[in-house]
Amino acid sequence: MEIKTLEDIKLNLTERSKINDIDFENLSFGNVFTDHMLVCDFVNGQWKQPEIMPYAPFTIEPSARVFHYGQAIFEGMKAYKDEAGDVWLFRPEQNFARFNKSAVRLAMPEVPEEVFLGGLKKLIQIDKEWVKRGDGKSLYIRPFMIATSSGVIASPSNNYRFMIILSPAKSYYSGEVKVVIADHFSRAANGGIGAAKAAGNYSAQFYPTKLANEKGFQQIIWTDDATHTKLEEAGTMNVFFRINDTLYTAPTSERILDGVTRKSLIELAKKENINVEVRSVLVDELVAAAKDGSLKEIFGAGTAAVVNPIAGFAYKDEYFELPKVEKSYALYLKEKLTNIQNKVADDTFNWTVKI
Amino acid sequence: MEIKTLEDIKLNLTERSKINDIDFENLSFGNVFTDHMLVCDFVNGQWKQPEIMPYAPFTIEPSARVFHYGQAIFEGMKAYKDEAGDVWLFRPEQNFARFNKSAVRLAMPEVPEEVFLGGLKKLIQIDKEWVKRGDGKSLYIRPFMIATSSGVIASPSNNYRFMIILSPAKSYYSGEVKVVIADHFSRAANGGIGAAKAAGNYSAQFYPTKLANEKGFQQIIWTDDATHTKLEEAGTMNVFFRINDTLYTAPTSERILDGVTRKSLIELAKKENINVEVRSVLVDELVAAAKDGSLKEIFGAGTAAVVNPIAGFAYKDEYFELPKVEKSYALYLKEKLTNIQNKVADDTFNWTVKI
Repeated sequence: MEIKTLEDIKLNLTERSKINDIDFENLSFGNVFTDHMLVCDFVNGQWKQPEIMPYAPFTIEPSARVFHYGQAIFEGMKAYKDEAGDVWLFRPEQNFARFNKSAVRLAMPEVPEEVFLGGLKKLIQIDKEWVKRGDGKSLYIRPFMIATSSGVIASPSNNYRFMIILSPAKSYYSGEVKVVIADHFSRAANGGIGAAKAAGNYSAQFYPTKLANEKGFQQIIWTDDATHTKLEEAGTMNVFFRINDTLYTAPTSERILDGVTRKSLIELAKKENINVEVRSVLVDELVAAAKDGSLKEIFGAGTAAVVNPIAGFAYKDEYFELPKVEKSYALYLKEKLTNIQNKVADDTFNWTVKI
Repeated sequence: MEIKTLEDIKLNLTERSKINDIDFENLSFGNVFTDHMLVCDFVNGQWKQPEIMPYAPFTIEPSARVFHYGQAIFEGMKAYKDEAGDVWLFRPEQNFARFNKSAVRLAMPEVPEEVFLGGLKKLIQIDKEWVKRGDGKSLYIRPFMIATSSGVIASPSNNYRFMIILSPAKSYYSGEVKVVIADHFSRAANGGIGAAKAAGNYSAQFYPTKLANEKGFQQIIWTDDATHTKLEEAGTMNVFFRINDTLYTAPTSERILDGVTRKSLIELAKKENINVEVRSVLVDELVAAAKDGSLKEIFGAGTAAVVNPIAGFAYKDEYFELPKVEKSYALYLKEKLTNIQNKVADDTFNWTVKI
């Protein structure tokens, strides 16, 4: 490790910001990027000096391992601006720790804290004008790492590139979300990489999701691949079920991502005296609860959408519309959480970190 | 589709071949590439004109979907030169069909035959001096496709790049191969993408393989992820077991790649009056056969290595050395198959295709 302090980051800043070309009221998620990005290469067993440079395409070998053997991991985080104009991160140490867990599972090098968190803070300081306030506005942060060694041989890469890119965001999902419960396809194997934020996990979901879309459903609730009886994730999010007045969510496992929003919602619900049980919910149980009226809500939880209420679900050939509830846990917890993230409520958990 | 014939491929050839810089007697697998590559982009729902151009790095967006959501598939094929100097492919239509099956599973566009097979033939014609004879020499062919649309949103890409790169090859594996039978990690889920040649499948294998390497094993025999009782693949290859004088290999499934070498060996064995049964072999069965001496051979089968004999296997804390057999099916079938591929034996199956 050569980098010791933020002063070790090389700065190569743009001469002209693109910020005035951007309509911040009309952003589609993840399509616009800020002026700069961070790049740090791992070569010969060492992380080199990180560089903050203008956001731009880069060159890569056609035989780069990432294209052939899929060593690629990422994180999703957000930065928020408070009334005073200061910028805050939400539990960034959680994403940093998970990123390095993903790295280990994919036989990639761990990224040093000075590069991941130090580099991230420096990058956001430079592009802080891109963080806007209000209407769910935030700056979506995408740290990622790819295998860059050339060679079409199925073994881990020697060289890697870690990058952070930033995208100003409003909200992720829109419209009513109906889901279908997976009874054939799956996103993760026992002993596989489902708990890692690995690129390959997402590519597995697109085709089944496309089939669901064609039938009028926006997302899939994934079940365990061996028996398809346990409810595990919703689309690219963790999932919560409210039966009567108890919230249920599956325990994390090798198949289930240890989501930062998921764990924050669990803590928040406890504080708000909402009963939460972390245990597997079975498909049969869900169907029975839908039939007897005890199923009140289903919602996804993730960084991009924060909380994503689900309107109804299909299983086999039956569709179950969820009731309209008076006091929605989904909306209540979403408001509580986003108020903390946006610094309009006290952060009694000490989750937010000022940049 | 705009391309109709090979004349529609744009040619942009190098002014100076690198071929005289290459030591063809000392090649490590997959590290040297020929003078040219084929590139064909899919944009706005259409395949554009393919181009054959000098092999070189290319530029890509940091937010290209392949880096974040893993839409990346490939094929492995080989070309061989006969005594007359003609170049031959081995069952290329099988790889073409499988590539497009992988494409469908990863919600990617199918590649037209004129681009995949037509482009491949044209590319090899141009770089035919790179195909050498003898000592297991061949030209390894790597068609692949990646998602190129920018944007960090977890949905299928709109744009894709299909490429073919070529690497002169000797043999893939070397030295004695000892394997360990997976009892925790796995490479594929039920209802997952294990049958697709998807980049993400390989990234899942590296960490468990690294752990196996540290214990002195070169590869892992993968088992079904739900029960770890069925033997499925060996490393990145299909796997065959010889118990007494019968060969066994698992049926293809959603978890198991439909290998071209695997299916060719099955047909070849039948023709040679070797009894072959396509059925799941259980771990317990293998251990029992090793103990009572009826287990004669284990070998991997794949394009790169063709046939890869395995010296012994570990399961839990026990290691089983395989016997030295007088008439090895692995070596016998490998010789029969490579003789067909190298055009030194009659190709009664009509597997080889002249370029």
